[in-house]
Amino acid sequence: MADHHLILGGTRSGKSGYAERCGLADDNARRHVYIATGQAHDAAMAARIARHRADRDARWHTVEAPLGLAQVLEAENKPGTVILVDCLTLWLSNALAADCWASERDALLAALPACQARVLMVSNEVGSGIVPLGELSRSFADEAGRLHQALATRCARVDLVVAGLPLNLKPSQR
Amino acid sequence: MADHHLILGGTRSGKSGYAERCGLADDNARRHVYIATGQAHDAAMAARIARHRADRDARWHTVEAPLGLAQVLEAENKPGTVILVDCLTLWLSNALAADCWASERDALLAALPACQARVLMVSNEVGSGIVPLGELSRSFADEAGRLHQALATRCARVDLVVAGLPLNLKPSQR
Amino acid sequence: MADHHLILGGTRSGKSGYAERCGLADDNARRHVYIATGQAHDAAMAARIARHRADRDARWHTVEAPLGLAQVLEAENKPGTVILVDCLTLWLSNALAADCWASERDALLAALPACQARVLMVSNEVGSGIVPLGELSRSFADEAGRLHQALATRCARVDLVVAGLPLNLKPSQR
Repeated sequence: MADHHLILGGTRSGKSGYAERCGLADDNARRHVYIATGQAHDAAMAARIARHRADRDARWHTVEAPLGLAQVLEAENKPGTVILVDCLTLWLSNALAADCWASERDALLAALPACQARVLMVSNEVGSGIVPLGELSRSFADEAGRLHQALATRCARVDLVVAGLPLNLKPSQR
Repeated sequence: MADHHLILGGTRSGKSGYAERCGLADDNARRHVYIATGQAHDAAMAARIARHRADRDARWHTVEAPLGLAQVLEAENKPGTVILVDCLTLWLSNALAADCWASERDALLAALPACQARVLMVSNEVGSGIVPLGELSRSFADEAGRLHQALATRCARVDLVVAGLPLNLKPSQR
Repeated sequence: MADHHLILGGTRSGKSGYAERCGLADDNARRHVYIATGQAHDAAMAARIARHRADRDARWHTVEAPLGLAQVLEAENKPGTVILVDCLTLWLSNALAADCWASERDALLAALPACQARVLMVSNEVGSGIVPLGELSRSFADEAGRLHQALATRCARVDLVVAGLPLNLKPSQR
């Protein structure tokens, strides 16, 4: 199994920047692929995507993939490739809206263990506040939490980023 | 003082599964009591309660206790018993709705130090998001936060669970 | 650079109490200044401010500063002074409402590195829940997250407080 890495954190916690630094610091990497899952539904979102792209190191080869994440991983699956998925939360959101979450999720979970490229995945911690009323918010928080647990078992390393600083969750610090 | 353990975590963080594993891993335990505090107010909640019960190891003897937590602890208070309370947040919610929070809380805080059974308590971290407007949400987040602080001083061990993985908060790692 | 300290935590996580203990435990401190940024807009807020003030150790000299944080730091900037800012989140909220956030923030970030007083800053973690809809909540969570990252690079020590217990983020534990 490649050394996959799950990077969790709240809004503007610095999780993407930390993930990019981890990916670029990998001396064995010959190719860096950045999978951007965001879709610009409004002006604020478009501005955020553009700002992220402008801030990104030029070594990253960007692939836009709002859905079909497992297929992109398989297309880029070569030893020596580092793949950064930013972020799983937008992908979850896209898949819930397109009513294909179960198949998207199952394909990712099945693809990861055999993936020889090293996959870094960024995701929002969304379950540590009061969950708003409404079925959609509840489902979203539930699915995000279950996904993080399932991915953590498939990753060699898991971090929670707070204020740009990583708290290491796995390998175990106990 | 028995070796009480407070286990915090967000929605679907894996905190209940971690608590169950901790309880079952206790070699000194001769009896395992699971105090379920949830009340099914809607179909989603009923489904979640049923799923949790089906997933639970058969060694757990389940007691349903939406309120009266201290009394159940006292009834089960024997050395060699492990009691898992899942979860404090639902109990808090039940007690606020029944207008008996202060007495419920004070009875639990008074019972714990003398309790010879080992008590594991699971609770939701709800204060790390934007707290919604409305007096009820504010009170809920405030009371949950204060309760966690008060319990942490009465526990030998405190963990924050993220993605199924424990971050140890006590004993101190500094 | 003085040994500045950023202390993050959710609602009622015990972050203020922890910050006060850190400040009072400083054997080199000859003066303790407490900068209170809260403004009482409603009765619940007024009660919370009054309760905090009553709980505070008498060694703290309180300065009320809803805005103009950098100016207060400069007025109190002497070696041997410990300044506790409680909290940055209310200050951010005041500055957004008064439409002067960019200048407030830039003045604080510019003042900190040269500040010879030791500054402890308390701030709410607000980005780990589902961010409510609405431009204001989004901006607030974004600005809070960016501020925490910027401050973390200017602090010798950063902690996340959960249930009254500090998780040390910096210096690095890796």
